[in-house]
Amino acid sequence: MTRAKMTRIEEARAGNITEEMKEVALAEGVSPEFIRKGLANATIAINKNIVRKDLRPLAVGTGLKTKVNANIGSSQDHIDHSEEIEKLLVAERAGADAVMDLSTGGDVNAIRRRVLEESSVPIGTVPIYQAAHDARQKGKSFVELTPDDMFDVIEMQAAEGVDFITVHCGVTHSSLDRIKAEGRIMGVVSRGGALTSEWMTYNKAENPLFEQYDRLIEIAKRYDMVLSLGDGLRPGAIADATDRGQVQELITLGELAKRATDAGVSVMIEGPGHVPLDQIEANILLQKRLCHGAPFYVLGPLVTDIAPGYDHITSAIGGAIAAGKGADFLCYVTPSEHLRLPSVEDVREGVMAARIAAHAGDIVKGTGAGAGMERDRAMSRARKALDWDEQIRLSIDPERARAIRESSAPEDGDVCTMCGSLCAIKITSEGGGGGH
Amino acid sequence: MTRAKMTRIEEARAGNITEEMKEVALAEGVSPEFIRKGLANATIAINKNIVRKDLRPLAVGTGLKTKVNANIGSSQDHIDHSEEIEKLLVAERAGADAVMDLSTGGDVNAIRRRVLEESSVPIGTVPIYQAAHDARQKGKSFVELTPDDMFDVIEMQAAEGVDFITVHCGVTHSSLDRIKAEGRIMGVVSRGGALTSEWMTYNKAENPLFEQYDRLIEIAKRYDMVLSLGDGLRPGAIADATDRGQVQELITLGELAKRATDAGVSVMIEGPGHVPLDQIEANILLQKRLCHGAPFYVLGPLVTDIAPGYDHITSAIGGAIAAGKGADFLCYVTPSEHLRLPSVEDVREGVMAARIAAHAGDIVKGTGAGAGMERDRAMSRARKALDWDEQIRLSIDPERARAIRESSAPEDGDVCTMCGSLCAIKITSEGGGGGH
Repeated sequence: MTRAKMTRIEEARAGNITEEMKEVALAEGVSPEFIRKGLANATIAINKNIVRKDLRPLAVGTGLKTKVNANIGSSQDHIDHSEEIEKLLVAERAGADAVMDLSTGGDVNAIRRRVLEESSVPIGTVPIYQAAHDARQKGKSFVELTPDDMFDVIEMQAAEGVDFITVHCGVTHSSLDRIKAEGRIMGVVSRGGALTSEWMTYNKAENPLFEQYDRLIEIAKRYDMVLSLGDGLRPGAIADATDRGQVQELITLGELAKRATDAGVSVMIEGPGHVPLDQIEANILLQKRLCHGAPFYVLGPLVTDIAPGYDHITSAIGGAIAAGKGADFLCYVTPSEHLRLPSVEDVREGVMAARIAAHAGDIVKGTGAGAGMERDRAMSRARKALDWDEQIRLSIDPERARAIRESSAPEDGDVCTMCGSLCAIKITSEGGGGGH
Repeated sequence: MTRAKMTRIEEARAGNITEEMKEVALAEGVSPEFIRKGLANATIAINKNIVRKDLRPLAVGTGLKTKVNANIGSSQDHIDHSEEIEKLLVAERAGADAVMDLSTGGDVNAIRRRVLEESSVPIGTVPIYQAAHDARQKGKSFVELTPDDMFDVIEMQAAEGVDFITVHCGVTHSSLDRIKAEGRIMGVVSRGGALTSEWMTYNKAENPLFEQYDRLIEIAKRYDMVLSLGDGLRPGAIADATDRGQVQELITLGELAKRATDAGVSVMIEGPGHVPLDQIEANILLQKRLCHGAPFYVLGPLVTDIAPGYDHITSAIGGAIAAGKGADFLCYVTPSEHLRLPSVEDVREGVMAARIAAHAGDIVKGTGAGAGMERDRAMSRARKALDWDEQIRLSIDPERARAIRESSAPEDGDVCTMCGSLCAIKITSEGGGGGH
């Protein structure tokens, strides 16, 4: 069996700069020592299961470019293996840094294995989904699963090469009781959180992933797999944001992060969700403080609840602010969120919107490899020069930019059909003759 | 000739609450006295030319809901009168609060007159565009226009019923010299600013709209038309944001705002443009302070330059932050910005993105009629109740939400195809049986 001799954190703490750290440093434009130090103090996590030989490792964390994840995967209502592979490839082509396979319909093992085989980016999963799916296949309810059933799935997925897993270890009686006492509008909206909560109620027991957390650490350590500590109690309504249950869970995740990193296992912390504009900064600050600078992986946040069909936009607003304030990893949201399983085109739109948010945040992040506006400056210079090829080359989505431009050809190739000869750049470049 | 006996500001300062103030107060959910006070201290402007008898007046300013404007209009390269009318109607149906006709191609007088005739929202224009167009028609350059030519166009448009006009009065030698001395990447990017700047250089003269500002006030006063003081020097690159030239112009606009409102004419102040995330709040604060609380009408702001094809998203990010910090009126940006004249579909997308931004801002604005998250709460309750009809009804774009939902029918009508029976709401509502 493949087994990590030393994990990345252990190497880093021993003062070793590995080839992988050098590779990551090169990709990020930082020094290998910066990566080593970030791993050692657990502000950086590298996503790559040691089983995955050819995968380029993905670093996430403080001082690095903000990354983007795309969720794909079948559901019971929509099962098409090849479509999920198409989503994977479209997400990668659109620039996703990682992909999570959240399949819950059809032969989920087969889908995941194909995703792992075909992907060139790290793959994450939520093993509890497969556990729920397996139970259903056997005609059982999820609540009848044993802790061993859950850990068996985690072990299997880790052994197959999954690079990071979402585990909802912070859904405990302590946090759930607070959710109930406070009285949310939406209650628990994460699937993992809901399943765990129901399991706990039915079995009158603590969350096995919390109670047997050392077992989880042990599995993760063997594969140097990143534990993405899920926010099972994330708000699903802006009215529910930053409440006592959510913050209680985050405190627990901070404690669990410490236990994992002390044991040499890297973690990321997952965050909300639905959050009004003015609470985003506080959420980032809280996470960074309570979790001692652990990489923060946010879903959205969506800044309003009323825009189904446009939640790639509501989440780009929140994601940009979050990234600017220090979130490290944005999970995309597609236009289909709250309405249906995303289509292939939705995946593309979602990745683009999240990349825009990540970049807008990186511009102002202040420090780190992604910081600054060099590409924006280059674009502005190309605009000033009326250099359309360069503008398209520098676009976040050159294919789309070119298609829109070519759909409406100006008489004068220097300008565009918005302003024609009244192009401000053209007028001021040419001087007094403007306005003809 | 129709002529306002007293303007709104004069009525308000005389302590009179007019029928119009009551109508606006009702629409905004505030007291008539609040509107009167806002008019009197010029923190609220009501857009409605007195010539336009049947138009519902639109109030913009402090303590009111954030409004959205859509720009339409032909260009030399794309002239289709009926398409522009279609854009007007689509913008209105999508929820735009105002529309600006920026036509510069074909028979611009005919287009504007039809727009005024067909519209049920206030109409704005940039009269200098028509002046430039008229010059071109006569085989002249814009720089050869006389100040009288410019004022004649303004007078004609005001008499026809245009509700608000953008006038780039702050483009002066003082601000232009500072732009030149500082050395921008993009220079002057607004069409009005570029035309004015070229006119000034060619004629070795000050901006006529600045120099003969009292003449402008006199025309506006006759029709109680709002002067939207344009930011001809707005940054067109995030690297150029908040520079000395931009701020110099804003200082001048503040002074001009005072002169207009002292004379009983309402103003709005136009703002950028391309602004990185972390400078938006400062831009709002500066405008509100330098212009003594005058309504702020922003274009975007776009938080990155590199996303042509997605600038409705880059501007929704900036617009949401701006609205949350006090911007009163958002000018939409469409996916075609920087690439071509927008299509009818682009107009719809642009309005929706700007409305999302306006609403996200209103949620956190803290005070005023739009503040708060009541509609979001209602949506969240509908989600919790798995009430799909209500969710669609409460959506910002019910048509789109319904279409997406209906494109992918779940087996169980309670849920959606994203999660199927693993729907967190369903699981937690039903209790222990979850996961089947």
